[in-house]
Amino acid sequence: MPPKPLDYESINENVKRAQYAVRGELYLRASELQKEGKKIIFTNVGNPHALGQKPLTFPRQVVALCQAPFLLDDPNVAVLFPADAIARAKHYLSLTTGGLGAYSDSRGLPGIRKEVAEFIYRRDGYPSDPELIYLTDGASKGVMQILNTIIRGQGDGVLVPVPQYPLYSATIALLGGSLVPYFLEETANWGLDVNELRQSVTEARYKGITVRAMVIINPGNPTGQCLSEANLREVLQFCYQENLVLLGDEVYQQNIYQDERPFVSSKKVLMDMGPPISKEVQLVSFHTVSKGYWGECGQRGGYFEMTNIPPETVDEIYKVASVSLSPNVPAQIFMGLMVNPPKPGDISFDQYARESKGILDSLRRRARLMTDGFNSCRNVVCNFTEDIMHDCLCLGAMYSFPQIRLPPRAIEAAKQAGKVPDVFYCLKLLEATGISTVPGSGFGQKEGIFHLRTTILPAEEEMPAIMSSFKKFNDEFMEQYEDHRGYSRM
Amino acid sequence: MPPKPLDYESINENVKRAQYAVRGELYLRASELQKEGKKIIFTNVGNPHALGQKPLTFPRQVVALCQAPFLLDDPNVAVLFPADAIARAKHYLSLTTGGLGAYSDSRGLPGIRKEVAEFIYRRDGYPSDPELIYLTDGASKGVMQILNTIIRGQGDGVLVPVPQYPLYSATIALLGGSLVPYFLEETANWGLDVNELRQSVTEARYKGITVRAMVIINPGNPTGQCLSEANLREVLQFCYQENLVLLGDEVYQQNIYQDERPFVSSKKVLMDMGPPISKEVQLVSFHTVSKGYWGECGQRGGYFEMTNIPPETVDEIYKVASVSLSPNVPAQIFMGLMVNPPKPGDISFDQYARESKGILDSLRRRARLMTDGFNSCRNVVCNFTEDIMHDCLCLGAMYSFPQIRLPPRAIEAAKQAGKVPDVFYCLKLLEATGISTVPGSGFGQKEGIFHLRTTILPAEEEMPAIMSSFKKFNDEFMEQYEDHRGYSRM
Ligand SMILES: Cc1ncc(COP(=O)(O)O)c(C=O)c1O
Ligand SMILES: Cc1ncc(COP(=O)(O)O)c(C=O)c1O
Repeated sequence: MPPKPLDYESINENVKRAQYAVRGELYLRASELQKEGKKIIFTNVGNPHALGQKPLTFPRQVVALCQAPFLLDDPNVAVLFPADAIARAKHYLSLTTGGLGAYSDSRGLPGIRKEVAEFIYRRDGYPSDPELIYLTDGASKGVMQILNTIIRGQGDGVLVPVPQYPLYSATIALLGGSLVPYFLEETANWGLDVNELRQSVTEARYKGITVRAMVIINPGNPTGQCLSEANLREVLQFCYQENLVLLGDEVYQQNIYQDERPFVSSKKVLMDMGPPISKEVQLVSFHTVSKGYWGECGQRGGYFEMTNIPPETVDEIYKVASVSLSPNVPAQIFMGLMVNPPKPGDISFDQYARESKGILDSLRRRARLMTDGFNSCRNVVCNFTEDIMHDCLCLGAMYSFPQIRLPPRAIEAAKQAGKVPDVFYCLKLLEATGISTVPGSGFGQKEGIFHLRTTILPAEEEMPAIMSSFKKFNDEFMEQYEDHRGYSRM
Repeated sequence: MPPKPLDYESINENVKRAQYAVRGELYLRASELQKEGKKIIFTNVGNPHALGQKPLTFPRQVVALCQAPFLLDDPNVAVLFPADAIARAKHYLSLTTGGLGAYSDSRGLPGIRKEVAEFIYRRDGYPSDPELIYLTDGASKGVMQILNTIIRGQGDGVLVPVPQYPLYSATIALLGGSLVPYFLEETANWGLDVNELRQSVTEARYKGITVRAMVIINPGNPTGQCLSEANLREVLQFCYQENLVLLGDEVYQQNIYQDERPFVSSKKVLMDMGPPISKEVQLVSFHTVSKGYWGECGQRGGYFEMTNIPPETVDEIYKVASVSLSPNVPAQIFMGLMVNPPKPGDISFDQYARESKGILDSLRRRARLMTDGFNSCRNVVCNFTEDIMHDCLCLGAMYSFPQIRLPPRAIEAAKQAGKVPDVFYCLKLLEATGISTVPGSGFGQKEGIFHLRTTILPAEEEMPAIMSSFKKFNDEFMEQYEDHRGYSRM
């Protein structure tokens, strides 16, 4: 009997090639253990509400009213909802034709795209055109759609940072393109070095690959680095010289836990540079309702903004978006609320501001707690803390990405178990403590150097216990595998 | 200067090749006219709420409460919400970890997949495994994911009905596969003839194409045909012989406006057939919250169920679903509610039953109104009404797909205007009446035969005016282009 079309042997090879460690072996094992009754702390994915973060009240009130528009005619509505939430719900419903149950335009509701454009204008100081903003079911879908437009086949390359969030590697594999890695430099706070970029492009060309796009994640996942304006300028200059589209993944733009280096968007830097670069470099920037202090991951809302993309291509992207009809409408409303939150003087402003600040402040404290916790562990180095006092540029996003210096005997034991060394370590950590992390190999790392990634999202009050359970496991692991006759900390 | 990566000349050719008429030239022109202030009746896409259909109350109450879970602690909640909606909201929240703001498992919430499996069991009489049910952002995304798993390149073919809903042709083009058309027979109530299938496969093989899958849309879009059990059995037998996966698009399973031929699922017929076929034929069935009497298109909720797909492939599909993290959670709740609606005795049952019946009865009346309206027009033939009294098997889904018999001089005029004849007709209809339809060429039709597709969704009270405005336009158009010296109705 020949294999059937959906038998493993005969499915699309690109599907098999795609790897996605964030929900990979570690996650699957953690899910199994959870089913068996073990308490699991899921720090494998940046999913704040799953770890107890409360949603912001005002946006939830507005979307609840949009879902139940009949409440707006109920004389008792004011018993449960403040007047500004009621007004906002009416506003957003007026931007739809038929409420949340109707497909919107495939690019998203025009009125919300306008609010996004106004937000970008306020943020960057440069006008933004709603016709070049497309709403999506989360940033992921936007990234996939743009990569699908760019990648024509194996000969097309995309520069992706290493370590990277594996959405990029997985999507490039799925689309049959070539990933062209460039390394971020751990010893320089995961900085981005343009010479490294140049070398990556040269090597790719040598292999016959046309490099067509470059991805930056800023602030970084998993590394948390925040790129400086000067660095972004170099990147844009490089894209100009090399004829690359820049994909700016800026989903963590609200997640910065230091004051020295505020977020600057790629779009602003591009515009600041003036012609010819500001008129020539093609840029697509991504944002989401999943991150920031919103954390509305389950709603699946995002947008991308296109700069210097010609209208015929914009139309093609529109056409392909139309095939799946429309991004989900409730999340479009969340996006509207995120870019246009309550203002001082609004009834709900104080509560909104208090809730947002509470979340951000706590994230900031947790980022520190974790970094310090990791640095107190044997053979674990996180963000080169000696620098942190002076230069805490890695405190962005929602992750900690400590280096785990595995002793040779641990590496040997992993090999015997048929596991990549950091997978071996993370599995043992999971079994011992219930902490579900992602091995550094899922994001990419230099040969022979190992990491793990956790989110900084467990509840603040649980953090000390988690960190001490981690330390206990780690220090025992190191004790077990260290060669007491010679191996020492690097 | 060489073209830039996102210049039209240099983007992915498959993106350009994909066509999607439902939001194509006609829709774009209609949107322009609307902007200019003209009243447009959008019947281009099955989007009931956009044309005034009210959402069902109970599911909206439940989802509103899930969005605003803090209301559940408010002593006044019962002022606005009935007790069974409150209980249901608590139930669904208990199936999540972190509410609607948390990414769910990439396959969807296990508890809801279980409710879907129970629904399928009740519907078909055969057990269904929740592990083989994946929730999606609408049926479209599910179809795209499955086709992506099947199609490896240009040599892989998928049998698609003609006329078809262009999701299929567009996705196959995007994925670089080959569409293998099989014609539905208009004169036999758009029936599916297995000899026609055989011929299509033979022709495709001759061209070097490996046919790997077959799509059926049942009830059909745009044709509304409801396949008989006997016909489905033939199709499954054919898939067995030819080693094809069957993709059963059953999104219109609630939309049947005759009593002679109730919906029977492909899964049930497959199971009824017994081994070897029931154990061998690979089947993926699709469903949605967008259609039926729900019409919750903007929520983007769907599922697919896999039958006879081996676990390794199911895992690969899971992995790829994970790359975009999770289907949106609010629509998962809608899916739960759709498959598990209020039961007799529940507080909200009467209202729910009344609302559902009201919508379905009205759709049924509108389907008749439209068919009769079209048949009263010069050179327009809809569903061969002479048969309808005896054999109204085409009254499914949400569309009317009349044949428009264009006089030779109209075809000539279209050619001169550089338009496909039915596009020419539909554009003139749009300009004259504001009725936005889709030309039959967007769905596929036999050479030299023309159709248009409208939905049956305009409000019932507006229907007579719309049909008479259509008749006026059409009869004048025919008057203008008919050759009074010789042309006569066929
Ligand atoms: C760097 C980065 N980009 C994009 C995303 C996708 O987010 P979403 O699809 O939820 O908007 C994530 C999620 O973790 C991320 O870390
Ligand atoms: C035959 C058919 N399949 C699938 C879909 C997709 O529906 P959705 O993605 O909203 O679930 C439609 C929508 O019109 C359809 O007509």
